[in-house]
Amino acid sequence: RSYSSRMALTDGLLFRQLFESESSTYTYLLGDTETKEAILIDPVLETIERDLKLIRELGLNLKVAVNTHCHADHITSTGLMKKRLVGLKSAISKFSGASADILLSEGDKIYFGKHYLTVRETPGHTDGCMVLVTGDQSMAFTGDALLIRGCGRTDFQQGCAKKLYESVHQKIFTLPDQCLVYPAHDYLGQTVSTVGEERKFNPRLTKSLEEFEHIMSNLNLPKPKQIDIAVPANLVCGVHNV
Amino acid sequence: RSYSSRMALTDGLLFRQLFESESSTYTYLLGDTETKEAILIDPVLETIERDLKLIRELGLNLKVAVNTHCHADHITSTGLMKKRLVGLKSAISKFSGASADILLSEGDKIYFGKHYLTVRETPGHTDGCMVLVTGDQSMAFTGDALLIRGCGRTDFQQGCAKKLYESVHQKIFTLPDQCLVYPAHDYLGQTVSTVGEERKFNPRLTKSLEEFEHIMSNLNLPKPKQIDIAVPANLVCGVHNV
Ligand SMILES: [Fe+2]
Ligand SMILES: [Fe+2]
Repeated sequence: RSYSSRMALTDGLLFRQLFESESSTYTYLLGDTETKEAILIDPVLETIERDLKLIRELGLNLKVAVNTHCHADHITSTGLMKKRLVGLKSAISKFSGASADILLSEGDKIYFGKHYLTVRETPGHTDGCMVLVTGDQSMAFTGDALLIRGCGRTDFQQGCAKKLYESVHQKIFTLPDQCLVYPAHDYLGQTVSTVGEERKFNPRLTKSLEEFEHIMSNLNLPKPKQIDIAVPANLVCGVHNV
Repeated sequence: RSYSSRMALTDGLLFRQLFESESSTYTYLLGDTETKEAILIDPVLETIERDLKLIRELGLNLKVAVNTHCHADHITSTGLMKKRLVGLKSAISKFSGASADILLSEGDKIYFGKHYLTVRETPGHTDGCMVLVTGDQSMAFTGDALLIRGCGRTDFQQGCAKKLYESVHQKIFTLPDQCLVYPAHDYLGQTVSTVGEERKFNPRLTKSLEEFEHIMSNLNLPKPKQIDIAVPANLVCGVHNV
């Protein structure tokens, strides 16, 4: 029988994709429909009230708020959210340079009810970038390592095109073809892709390493508007004293 | 076992939600993974190239491009898309006043491979509004009849708050609780809801008819910027001579 992206979806998993339009960031809410334990990926300061309201309405118990990396384009809400939700823990890669309750590294698992996400380290956009993969490998939250038909830039923070190329090929393109790719950003209204699609159609990552490095060093992108405020803030979960 | 929204998803169904940021419109692509037959709901003129590229990359054979109603806030791409894809048919409600290849009414089915959507007429925002429901009732494309924690306005075209209230209660709130609600628009970065959630938390539709009518007649919204261009265009699939 044919294996569609939508068949891969996990039993008893509540899932919501949310968008913050100022920084074009996707926030992901995942919950266990039985225990109501939930986790939140890449929440944004501007949309904290929307996210808290949804978590409350759905009756979820938010255990962990995790950032895929130390963002340069928006401030995370994890720190402020901890002040609003008792017991909530913040999490980020131990190679991010940021402080958080949980410092993650390769192979670590984040549990919520019977579900979990596994950490795959994917340095290149930043040193502390990681991809979070569901236990059944049906969904990958790729942060800025792999975007839909694109990838994160490598010209600031600890950016390195070679590292990013290797991370994507070794840690993402080795996932099953039908694994859904949920990125941290999209600028064209695309909400999801699959590993198979990106392996075939990603205009950057389908190239050779040399061509990829050439592309990445000639993007000439403007500096992110919020970078000088966002990075220092995100090193401490968006707020001081958390 | 617990019944999550994600369990309801249908076997062998390819599904993509796409967003057009100028009018905050969601376009939906649904395909049969075996036969590759596909349909497109509410495509927008501005994003026609993105949509055509995705359809091509996914190897889909687009059979029908359908509008949930005659939109006032953007121009549909169904007419132009017909000129690009041989065999494509446009569809809209027979009560919309618009011309199209297929004029739909209550109970009609739109087939793509082994899948289909069933038409439920939901007048109120306009006379020709309809909701499209998957065969297994796991997903409802609600157009502007029901938005996430909101609903379409009733102060222009054939808008009627009483009709909208009855349509939502009789044709949408009678679907299963876990049925996913995919609206034509969202302005807050929300991508999906469920019938159960809207029945419980929709700030307008949970009220009495009298309160609802009062709310709807006091929204004081500005006239949509594109209405004078969009409505006449959408009466002919966005282009003349289709
Ligand atoms: Fe980033
Ligand atoms: Fe509308």
